[in-house]
Amino acid sequence: MMHKKVKKQLEKLLGKEKVFSQKEYLVTYSYDAAGKESLPELVVFPGCEEDIRHTLRIAYEHKIPITPRGAGVGYSGGSVPIQGGIALVFTKMNKILCIDTENFYAEVQPGVVTYNLQQEVEKKGLFYPPDPASLKTSTIGGNVAENAGGLRCFKYGVTGNYVLGLEAFLIDGGKINVGSHVIKDVAGYNIKSLLIGSEGTLAVISKIILRLIPLPPYRRLFRLDFASLGKGAEFINQMIKENIGPSVLEFMDESSIAAVFDYLKLPKNSNLKAAVLVELDGNKGDVEERAQRLSRLVKDSQVLDYKAAETEAEIEELWSIRRNISPAISKYKPKKINEDIVVPIGKIVEAVEFINNTAKEYGLTIILFGHFGDGNIHTNVMVDPDDEDEMKRTEIALDKIFRYVISVKGSITGEHGVGITKKAFMKYQFSDREIEIFKRVKRAFDPENLLNPGKIF
Amino acid sequence: MMHKKVKKQLEKLLGKEKVFSQKEYLVTYSYDAAGKESLPELVVFPGCEEDIRHTLRIAYEHKIPITPRGAGVGYSGGSVPIQGGIALVFTKMNKILCIDTENFYAEVQPGVVTYNLQQEVEKKGLFYPPDPASLKTSTIGGNVAENAGGLRCFKYGVTGNYVLGLEAFLIDGGKINVGSHVIKDVAGYNIKSLLIGSEGTLAVISKIILRLIPLPPYRRLFRLDFASLGKGAEFINQMIKENIGPSVLEFMDESSIAAVFDYLKLPKNSNLKAAVLVELDGNKGDVEERAQRLSRLVKDSQVLDYKAAETEAEIEELWSIRRNISPAISKYKPKKINEDIVVPIGKIVEAVEFINNTAKEYGLTIILFGHFGDGNIHTNVMVDPDDEDEMKRTEIALDKIFRYVISVKGSITGEHGVGITKKAFMKYQFSDREIEIFKRVKRAFDPENLLNPGKIF
Repeated sequence: MMHKKVKKQLEKLLGKEKVFSQKEYLVTYSYDAAGKESLPELVVFPGCEEDIRHTLRIAYEHKIPITPRGAGVGYSGGSVPIQGGIALVFTKMNKILCIDTENFYAEVQPGVVTYNLQQEVEKKGLFYPPDPASLKTSTIGGNVAENAGGLRCFKYGVTGNYVLGLEAFLIDGGKINVGSHVIKDVAGYNIKSLLIGSEGTLAVISKIILRLIPLPPYRRLFRLDFASLGKGAEFINQMIKENIGPSVLEFMDESSIAAVFDYLKLPKNSNLKAAVLVELDGNKGDVEERAQRLSRLVKDSQVLDYKAAETEAEIEELWSIRRNISPAISKYKPKKINEDIVVPIGKIVEAVEFINNTAKEYGLTIILFGHFGDGNIHTNVMVDPDDEDEMKRTEIALDKIFRYVISVKGSITGEHGVGITKKAFMKYQFSDREIEIFKRVKRAFDPENLLNPGKIF
Repeated sequence: MMHKKVKKQLEKLLGKEKVFSQKEYLVTYSYDAAGKESLPELVVFPGCEEDIRHTLRIAYEHKIPITPRGAGVGYSGGSVPIQGGIALVFTKMNKILCIDTENFYAEVQPGVVTYNLQQEVEKKGLFYPPDPASLKTSTIGGNVAENAGGLRCFKYGVTGNYVLGLEAFLIDGGKINVGSHVIKDVAGYNIKSLLIGSEGTLAVISKIILRLIPLPPYRRLFRLDFASLGKGAEFINQMIKENIGPSVLEFMDESSIAAVFDYLKLPKNSNLKAAVLVELDGNKGDVEERAQRLSRLVKDSQVLDYKAAETEAEIEELWSIRRNISPAISKYKPKKINEDIVVPIGKIVEAVEFINNTAKEYGLTIILFGHFGDGNIHTNVMVDPDDEDEMKRTEIALDKIFRYVISVKGSITGEHGVGITKKAFMKYQFSDREIEIFKRVKRAFDPENLLNPGKIF
């Protein structure tokens, strides 16, 4: 139990308006989107660097665990304070410090909401590409902690590809600057990339320097329907090789199409078994030229149906089937277990088949959709948490799916992180020796295991 | 002094054709392109993973330093065995293990020459973009160890952006797999990115999995001449913002232009003070459309002269002024000290001015050229190593330049690494606390400091 003295000290240093131990605060910051929960003993909202430093120093002195947190919309329990202690909530450090149009970077505090940053940089003709599905609520700090992905990664890469530099505090309150303000920098070890995706277990990030690129001025959206995911995959491989260069390649398999068409009461071609949303972006002439080649390729291929959005309303209509997956499937069962496995893109069809067969074998409802260009398959197991037998079958089926993913050289998580929900599967992806290296690195930064303890391994 | 028993053991395990202690071998593997030298006691050429494992185990047992080495063309002394021991030379592990056109990756041994890989993947319609200037001799292993850059980084990124996964041996001979075969992978700590650019000080890389992308089918090259570098910089900023999207943006300042025009005996407009080579690549229609916008932009701007290469011969001619910088300037002095500082791109003009003023102040010949898109300025100080006074002035001037670079948020090295030549300047870029973190990470991997000891810090 945390000593009252600690709260007093923090209140004195940070101000009473930043330190809370009331039940409603503890509950609010006890869970994330994975549905795991554990109460912190204290909730602290740093407003500036000095607040972070003070909090860490005091926590370090008293051996109190610290769990940094953005918007708490992660899917792996990464921001759940499972050992109690202090929840360090960054929502009040939400300033965009600068957008530099001459040097193509932005400096932001960790609590900036991703979508807000995108809006601000786009006003200046610049572009911050990473677009995790949660972008309207999730924070840049959270995105960096998980190395979040999104829809545009095949063309533009993930969050980590846009982080030029980080300022961060070590567990004892010491500060480090890693990376810089430039694209090329090979001085010293790449601690910046080590911190990205380390889920708040190595250091507390206080400032982020992000690379910006010119905003592509033009976009087109298409939907391609196929009689099988296999035919879709062949088409996409050809499309990639012919340099049609999509920025988005979202696929939905039979399970998610059925759910959405039913939910939206849309008429459905009975042969429709897979759909792919394709976005092209860039200069207008170029996008139109690639769109023409795409439509020629459609004519020469086994595409069931093809829609090219011409108006904003049509764009919305095409996106709506993708956006309505979540509400559509939430009717099936009270809870969705959302996994984010990755396989090499040539293995997507096989992987989807494997997962569908596994779902049948264990009598489960699994809804699949994902990002074709990077092999990231969102695997949603629909469950009733009160159905013990179903939960047991889910556990066994997921275990089988994770082992399969590793057997085809994939990853157990492409976007959400390990947190607490995927700890048990780490052994499939990593040897004892590799886990040992992770632990040694952890000790190099946080010898007393106070920073977000109990996560990853 | 290494015990003879060690050589005998290695000969027995690896074969006599892979283990050498003759003087000519020791001398051959004692230096790199920085001109630093130090003899190893033994040269070992691993042919396979088992050879690496055996060598490391024996070295670890006898506490013998190991210095991994690719082609030895680095500019920072990174592969010089400054504490003797074993030079572990990867030139015989030079196989391309697979090029997977369905999953868009290649698996290679560390000794594959970068250019050879590019040739092989291009035959299959794919592209491995990183192109360090040394690509015809340097190896992928060396490129990964230094996180090499090149000319195309503004559009395509550096070596590290193309490394999906690594297999590597720890100092005691244990093996780890880090990263994977997919673009998105956030499981565990990003040890892959930590090893990239770690200059052989953390682990010995034995296999590299590289991302491939579709080969852009079309390219155009242009040369733009300016009456000042400032005018060139304004033009380039506008070109970037208008999405003309260059793949190459090589600039030469007055010093390198004067040297090359004199060397090639070309007539020179007396107003010509800066030149920029611009390459556009992509689909043909798109490149031509951007080329048209580029030429319109030229008409509206203060460009002194503008050349668009139409034939292979003209492309060669445009490149020749860039390629002849090295032979041209080698006439000035016996030795070139080649630094690779980086500044934010909006600071290039100011940085070039600062360096030119510093050259004047200390009576030095400094030739400048570099990569405009990423702010990487190759700073060549031409010296006579026997001129003690000049060497002293060079030391003071470089120290001043490095401090300046850090003051404008740049980096002391963008491509070459720290090795031994930039150790003294690390203190400008990193605080004691940051260096301490580097050392802790080093100890987590190599507690007895046997892997490429004496480098970076």
